[in-house]
Amino acid sequence: MQPSFVASACDASCPFPLNNLPYGVFSQKDTSRSVCVAIGDRPLVTAKTAGTIFSEATLNAFLALGKPAWLEVRVALQDALSAAPKRQNMQAELMPLQSDVTMHLPAKIGDYTDFYSSLNHARNVGTMFRGPENALPPNWLHMPIGYHGRASSVVVSGTPVTRPCGQLRPNPEAPPVFAPCRLLDFELEMATLIGGPENELGKRIPMNEAGDRIFGFSLMNDWSARDIQKWEYVPLGPFGAKSFATTISPWIIPLEALEPFKQEPQAQDPEVLPYLRGESSMRGHCTYNIDLTVKLQSVAGELPSTVCRSNFKNLYWTVAQQITHHAVTGCNMQPGDLIASGTISGEDASAFGSMLELSWKGTKEIALENCDSPTTRKFLQDGDTVVMEGHAVGNGFTIGFGDCSGNILPASKE
Amino acid sequence: MQPSFVASACDASCPFPLNNLPYGVFSQKDTSRSVCVAIGDRPLVTAKTAGTIFSEATLNAFLALGKPAWLEVRVALQDALSAAPKRQNMQAELMPLQSDVTMHLPAKIGDYTDFYSSLNHARNVGTMFRGPENALPPNWLHMPIGYHGRASSVVVSGTPVTRPCGQLRPNPEAPPVFAPCRLLDFELEMATLIGGPENELGKRIPMNEAGDRIFGFSLMNDWSARDIQKWEYVPLGPFGAKSFATTISPWIIPLEALEPFKQEPQAQDPEVLPYLRGESSMRGHCTYNIDLTVKLQSVAGELPSTVCRSNFKNLYWTVAQQITHHAVTGCNMQPGDLIASGTISGEDASAFGSMLELSWKGTKEIALENCDSPTTRKFLQDGDTVVMEGHAVGNGFTIGFGDCSGNILPASKE
Repeated sequence: MQPSFVASACDASCPFPLNNLPYGVFSQKDTSRSVCVAIGDRPLVTAKTAGTIFSEATLNAFLALGKPAWLEVRVALQDALSAAPKRQNMQAELMPLQSDVTMHLPAKIGDYTDFYSSLNHARNVGTMFRGPENALPPNWLHMPIGYHGRASSVVVSGTPVTRPCGQLRPNPEAPPVFAPCRLLDFELEMATLIGGPENELGKRIPMNEAGDRIFGFSLMNDWSARDIQKWEYVPLGPFGAKSFATTISPWIIPLEALEPFKQEPQAQDPEVLPYLRGESSMRGHCTYNIDLTVKLQSVAGELPSTVCRSNFKNLYWTVAQQITHHAVTGCNMQPGDLIASGTISGEDASAFGSMLELSWKGTKEIALENCDSPTTRKFLQDGDTVVMEGHAVGNGFTIGFGDCSGNILPASKE
Repeated sequence: MQPSFVASACDASCPFPLNNLPYGVFSQKDTSRSVCVAIGDRPLVTAKTAGTIFSEATLNAFLALGKPAWLEVRVALQDALSAAPKRQNMQAELMPLQSDVTMHLPAKIGDYTDFYSSLNHARNVGTMFRGPENALPPNWLHMPIGYHGRASSVVVSGTPVTRPCGQLRPNPEAPPVFAPCRLLDFELEMATLIGGPENELGKRIPMNEAGDRIFGFSLMNDWSARDIQKWEYVPLGPFGAKSFATTISPWIIPLEALEPFKQEPQAQDPEVLPYLRGESSMRGHCTYNIDLTVKLQSVAGELPSTVCRSNFKNLYWTVAQQITHHAVTGCNMQPGDLIASGTISGEDASAFGSMLELSWKGTKEIALENCDSPTTRKFLQDGDTVVMEGHAVGNGFTIGFGDCSGNILPASKE
């Protein structure tokens, strides 16, 4: 625990101590959006140390500066926010409380890509739909499979999510129908915000440079309409079943804050092609020991029930491999791009990162705790709130992610 | 033919007469990018009639204004550019020649979506890979299938295209290899630039409002690495096989200019679900009689050879249906989004819109005319230039699209 003059930042359970310092974008009643950093229960509003990036309405300009600038600002902020306030304009009483500000999307997302990098998740889904012998697609162990997602529908935590309508085919012998989604689901994911100078179109990003493109992580809920997805996704992949909303937590945790929680990457067998090989000393070619939970609240006012306890360690493909593979054909990655991990499922059934897996395709009821009357779920119902949380617990300190939450509204009539 | 004081605009074969007036973004040696309109052999530089949109570096602000503003500016421009110059600052000699300017991407693309809306193309591809009985996926006749593409790699005509490298599996019994793409292809498409006020996330766009979101059309070459695509695309769709480059022509043809070439939409059997039904009086719920050609030039200096003659009429799903389906789950469509038609193939083999189809999966050689020595192609080779053209020929006038071209550079070593 590094001490800070912001008292609330010095508690071992505080998600935002001096060694976290995540970035976000906030506004207050009378002010326009601007970049901020969380310290304790307050967002840091002004920081002359940090140059003009705090006056921007998104993180994009700062993202473009690249890793040397990120590190320089981080060191300056840690110095300025340490035990004694060193600057006139940096006093706790001048910083608004997080409870008094509105958080927004931290960046203007350029392109959003969703990977499929958890072996447990891919195997679960494959087993359900194709049987255990054909669970993994033949390419799965050779490359981090991903698809382009929809950037415009990425929203910040707290944004309500309207149950989507679309084409379903509940009876495979009958024509499809237009109806509200019946199998609405969450997917527990981690998102990486991309920064650094853009690689030129036509040029690759080698493994030893991929890590420099990682600014930081946020939680992500990749809401999914399973019945719409099932009918639409062959042969071109998920489309409308995903593009009605994708929620991220408002704080981007700098990769530096997660350094103490690094883990060796999972063993990869068969050996990957040389362009995907790396050393665990390379930035981002690792996993992280970050506890991830999903809570479901069925009725406002009742306590939420934990339905999933997973961990970021459960990723087979590293973020560096995702970036290198993404650019292997020459795709230019720009500051503000967002790449997500895919659903992060553990081996144990309690660590499955979606209702599809938890209810095993709707064959099992998930009992919610903490409800006044017995309540179960197979998929999400109107009124449900899904809250994702992430915590990396160190020796006397916690790196928290801030909530990633969304409440389900009934399908729209228009 | 409506007369203009710009003499070159008055020729029946001029692609940019007064009733076209397509929008683009250009720069000259000493000037920054700004919006322009093509008239004859010149881009229109200043137009006080048109307000401040001509001082913007992209079309996005104009796109956001919506159809009433688009029509107002169009009428004012047609008036100002008619037979006699009516304004001091609008004289032909004050307008630079198109040959003297550099064209850029007309808009900052938000999200890019690629549909798959030509029945002939879908049937050809399906027949090749799954046989004639299973040619069409079961959902194809029920919805305009599409996938999210990569926005960052959309480039303007003339940008060289580097042959991508990636994972291929030439021998399905052996592991994949990393190599330059061997089956590089073009896809002849039409792109729609989306404008108008954004629909709120969670709200649909009914068929009778979809047309108001269409600003105009450009040609598109959706470059494709067939061997990379084959190995990567199951189950999540095309990814790196497409995201190395997507070329569009620099001019956006306003929908109004294409009004004389409207055609009834193709008959759709089975009948589509009510949310996709429309009247042919609805804007954008139609096809257009636009001749589309693809030319291939194997050596600089030689005449290009026409390898495909197709027509925009060959689309089964209308642009209005694409937009309505895109938003059916509540996806917000923003000004600057780009949606493409998918490969536009006619019934006849000479009208197939990709080398994959023309060479029938590499089983036939395509002979190029106009070459000094006999030259054939199955797929694209380094040094090849692909030029797409579009023309709608009316009574004494032509609505042209401007070229959509790209030259293939050898694979990069890095």
